[in-house]
Amino acid sequence: MEKKIKILGINASPRKYGNTYKLLKISLEAAKKLGADVELIHLYDYDIKPCIGCLSDVQKACRYPCVIDDDAKIILEKILKNDGLIIATPTYWYGPSGHLKNLIDRMTAFENMIFITGRSLVEGKVAGFIAVGNDSGNILAISYMMTVLNSMGFMIPPWALAYYIGNEDVLKSKNSIMDAANVGKVIVDAIRMTKKGHEWYDPKILEKIQLDIDAIRESTETEYRSQWPIREKIILKLTKQK
Amino acid sequence: MEKKIKILGINASPRKYGNTYKLLKISLEAAKKLGADVELIHLYDYDIKPCIGCLSDVQKACRYPCVIDDDAKIILEKILKNDGLIIATPTYWYGPSGHLKNLIDRMTAFENMIFITGRSLVEGKVAGFIAVGNDSGNILAISYMMTVLNSMGFMIPPWALAYYIGNEDVLKSKNSIMDAANVGKVIVDAIRMTKKGHEWYDPKILEKIQLDIDAIRESTETEYRSQWPIREKIILKLTKQK
Amino acid sequence: MEKKIKILGINASPRKYGNTYKLLKISLEAAKKLGADVELIHLYDYDIKPCIGCLSDVQKACRYPCVIDDDAKIILEKILKNDGLIIATPTYWYGPSGHLKNLIDRMTAFENMIFITGRSLVEGKVAGFIAVGNDSGNILAISYMMTVLNSMGFMIPPWALAYYIGNEDVLKSKNSIMDAANVGKVIVDAIRMTKKGHEWYDPKILEKIQLDIDAIRESTETEYRSQWPIREKIILKLTKQK
Amino acid sequence: MEKKIKILGINASPRKYGNTYKLLKISLEAAKKLGADVELIHLYDYDIKPCIGCLSDVQKACRYPCVIDDDAKIILEKILKNDGLIIATPTYWYGPSGHLKNLIDRMTAFENMIFITGRSLVEGKVAGFIAVGNDSGNILAISYMMTVLNSMGFMIPPWALAYYIGNEDVLKSKNSIMDAANVGKVIVDAIRMTKKGHEWYDPKILEKIQLDIDAIRESTETEYRSQWPIREKIILKLTKQK
Repeated sequence: MEKKIKILGINASPRKYGNTYKLLKISLEAAKKLGADVELIHLYDYDIKPCIGCLSDVQKACRYPCVIDDDAKIILEKILKNDGLIIATPTYWYGPSGHLKNLIDRMTAFENMIFITGRSLVEGKVAGFIAVGNDSGNILAISYMMTVLNSMGFMIPPWALAYYIGNEDVLKSKNSIMDAANVGKVIVDAIRMTKKGHEWYDPKILEKIQLDIDAIRESTETEYRSQWPIREKIILKLTKQK
Repeated sequence: MEKKIKILGINASPRKYGNTYKLLKISLEAAKKLGADVELIHLYDYDIKPCIGCLSDVQKACRYPCVIDDDAKIILEKILKNDGLIIATPTYWYGPSGHLKNLIDRMTAFENMIFITGRSLVEGKVAGFIAVGNDSGNILAISYMMTVLNSMGFMIPPWALAYYIGNEDVLKSKNSIMDAANVGKVIVDAIRMTKKGHEWYDPKILEKIQLDIDAIRESTETEYRSQWPIREKIILKLTKQK
Repeated sequence: MEKKIKILGINASPRKYGNTYKLLKISLEAAKKLGADVELIHLYDYDIKPCIGCLSDVQKACRYPCVIDDDAKIILEKILKNDGLIIATPTYWYGPSGHLKNLIDRMTAFENMIFITGRSLVEGKVAGFIAVGNDSGNILAISYMMTVLNSMGFMIPPWALAYYIGNEDVLKSKNSIMDAANVGKVIVDAIRMTKKGHEWYDPKILEKIQLDIDAIRESTETEYRSQWPIREKIILKLTKQK
Repeated sequence: MEKKIKILGINASPRKYGNTYKLLKISLEAAKKLGADVELIHLYDYDIKPCIGCLSDVQKACRYPCVIDDDAKIILEKILKNDGLIIATPTYWYGPSGHLKNLIDRMTAFENMIFITGRSLVEGKVAGFIAVGNDSGNILAISYMMTVLNSMGFMIPPWALAYYIGNEDVLKSKNSIMDAANVGKVIVDAIRMTKKGHEWYDPKILEKIQLDIDAIRESTETEYRSQWPIREKIILKLTKQK
């Protein structure tokens, strides 16, 4: 039997009826048609306080559940219960909305569990991204979110992104609709293909595979010795210049 | 029988013996220990001319094989033959080396096949990233490469990145070595789990899943009508201000 | 008589005693020694609500003072009263803290006055940036802030940035101290050199300088005609390929 | 008498007749109308080899003139002779063209003179940026260039950026034309206001202003002592959790 798939969509726009919401809705509807259970939440319905940076004082002080008692807890819990996450944001100054940035900062509590239990709580979950703006900047916002979530342990399936530039009704833009629907699809596909609970990052990898660091060192030194004379000439020439 | 895995590593540093090379070597060795066939090439051994932007004149003019007759062809062919790609770059001004950027630009010939045959030639391949620099900027370089390759159709497995800040021998940095080895591991894992030749982006998705755009439009309009009166008050108040 | 210079420093870290604060303090002390009046505020002492995106509904609805009644008003007012602004942030996930991002979003009320009065309220003010983190990402955070503030109308003097990677006491890092002191210096220098109230962006520039767009069009067409035959050959060849 | 102003424009597009060229031409024409001497060069007319990273071997080995003997020398010399620089690039994969990235890498020879003579050769020059693409990504490309050139010592005047999204003739886009003309204007204004040869970054600043680092340390320690008890409680509570 196929495993049950659950996907959470977060609308990080204050406008519950705008283009950001619409593209997110399309992604989720596509995922649903493809067999997933989906849930859409409006981030602006939740009070999210800024991260207070506990780990800058003591690395292990940042852990899940986060010490701050606010609505972020509800959302973080939802993220944990789902296999996939689609974040949709209006592009505010080429980035995610500040409200969403606060949530992202608070998600540190998932990733920092690496220092407590050896595993990130979101390891292997699958993420996709939507950004909507009237001007340039969508890709900068998406690029930012993608890198951060990958660093937390999320997998990013091919073309896990959709955006729309403009202030017309996005439902008139065939391309954006198609991209958004495919964000839903690639997340469903990726969740189906990957093993739930698989350990991706292995902190004991070096022992397990018995990597021969000395051999690598030696081969680079051989390479260095063969190449250095040429570069040395350049450098000597240069450093002799006044 | 498990499918045969092939991974290509590209060293985009002019120094064949430096830290960039070393981390890449570690990633590839790890992948090899985990059962992959690996190949490492030094990008600076190849002459790569800059992209001439054919598609800006005619969208369909950019296709594989690229019209420019130089060494990029050899590398592009290698990328196609492999299931995974690890790009390792020195961080030059917070980004990939210009030589690597030229290769990335030339990889447009893979992605633009979407407009010719409906499929990107690198769809579903798996990518990882390494950046090495003496200062800040590695993450900016990695973030850039990750977003671009995802937009071309590459999958990005969890923690598909490793970097090193400093000018000591990277082989003394346990963390960077461990991260690099894991880049090799997550790529192997992702290739094993995902179906070769799987169609991720489906240009016919809207027809297939019969998405009810009208229902989405209607639900946003209902939402709009319920929320607008509150926002309208704010806006009216504001636009009346001098 | 030299004009009186005022510089505001915003510490966007929740830790009032940390490295972010220290570098900011150094910048401001340097500016003070060079003749400026300086003020340092801790952003976490202020309650800043997220931007509600009024302009996405009606472009002219976003204006200063912002419609949201919270502590952001106090900070926005301070920014207006100063000639220079130094933003210091801890690097949270390669970016500014979410709390700071909320402030940046709210600063839209300055820039959007372009659509009301024709001028951004922060036009010609001078900005500098500090980021501190235990890992890579400082430059990504700085790059983000620099581009945004420049787009709002701030001038960025040479080397308007300082950062520190690590978790030691930054006061032991000569380089970071020197960079931070110079952030103070370049801002003072830039404020001294530039005319207060100068109109940088001129919405009537096209009329004033009577730019001959037709001549530009014609010259590009001539260029096109001479170059096209060569490119056309390439493209024809390509589009004939199957 | 007003100082004579010279501005160089670099068209980093292979297409000498395209939108990138057109916007650059507008910037330069505006600057000319405002009294500047201007020169436009097509980067693709020059052979630029990739940077070979000498400074990774020996910091002082990278210096101007660069050891590589190619056309970059001609361009670097032109940059030195001008007070201002406008870089116009097509947006290739959300960034500058690889050909331009190679030039940027080679400009390291200007900045690295800090380690030889104490001064960057481009210190205090003024820069502006243009990016043109059919899709999202222009701001990412501009953000990248702005941060890099500021780190080399360039000043960035307010709104030193113009872009165009689309594949129509940019000469029909009033906004882009106006922005591009203003890039020319703000650069001329900034050059006029700033002192030629002014020392911005002062490596001896700490001695000169006699910054009291001890006082800063002490004040942060006082702050720490007053705030720590509250944070300690949080952290103790957290670290006691299983």
